[in-house]
Amino acid sequence: MDPITCTPIGHVRGGRTEPIDDDWDAVEATIELDGERFGPDVLAGLDAFSHIDVVFVFDRVDEAAVHLGARHPRNNPDWPAVGIFAQRAKVRPNRIGVTTCPLLGVDGLRLRVRGLDAIDGTPVLDIKPYLREFAPRGATTQPAWATELMAGYW
Amino acid sequence: MDPITCTPIGHVRGGRTEPIDDDWDAVEATIELDGERFGPDVLAGLDAFSHIDVVFVFDRVDEAAVHLGARHPRNNPDWPAVGIFAQRAKVRPNRIGVTTCPLLGVDGLRLRVRGLDAIDGTPVLDIKPYLREFAPRGATTQPAWATELMAGYW
Repeated sequence: MDPITCTPIGHVRGGRTEPIDDDWDAVEATIELDGERFGPDVLAGLDAFSHIDVVFVFDRVDEAAVHLGARHPRNNPDWPAVGIFAQRAKVRPNRIGVTTCPLLGVDGLRLRVRGLDAIDGTPVLDIKPYLREFAPRGATTQPAWATELMAGYW
Repeated sequence: MDPITCTPIGHVRGGRTEPIDDDWDAVEATIELDGERFGPDVLAGLDAFSHIDVVFVFDRVDEAAVHLGARHPRNNPDWPAVGIFAQRAKVRPNRIGVTTCPLLGVDGLRLRVRGLDAIDGTPVLDIKPYLREFAPRGATTQPAWATELMAGYW
């Protein structure tokens, strides 16, 4: 597989400094875009959207820790062992996170967000406006363990 | 900004061979994971989810075509000129796409999906189960142009 090189468009500033499993909606942070590459034009019109999708890299995860066998989410033996692509854990190939969060404001190259589950200094690869048409088409189903895991997440 | 190197976990096989703007829900395709790195364990339990998030690279976009000024989506002058991070166009820095689509089935290292807006051969960087808790928290708003653009997308 040919590698693909990405360049962060900016970084998360503020918010948590340590990854903690739960209560992310209590956290506000700023995404600061790279002022050497971008002008405020790249964000023109974004403030008409209430939410954004943020694509980021769990860069504090040691790539050697990425686990490919099935495992119990959060090491909870009450939940089934599932593969890394059947969970959203951060110890995953390419260490990419994707989260939709409320956009609180845009000021120049800085975006204020709430509930972004990425810590201070996290590299950001992309920002997209959330369009309701990108919600799942059709009813969704998920296993009970996933619902239990998420109970305190936000 | 320090670059980040990703290695595709697999590729889209089948579906469209040319990017076309609309009617993506008519398209079925397969995602084939890299059998040299992964065993079927990485997908264990995924079939309990109805939908997945697919993170992929618009690799047929020439990086030199990535446009950083505000522009009219689909060059439609009836819609406002907006920045690249205020739209989901593929000519974007890092050329990353993220789409939630129905998972039709899992067979070994192959996933059948519907409505993935990525063409045959597209490199895939990540697959995540769609959890309904990752839907936007709070009501969403978006500008009229975005709703109009999406009218025929799926």
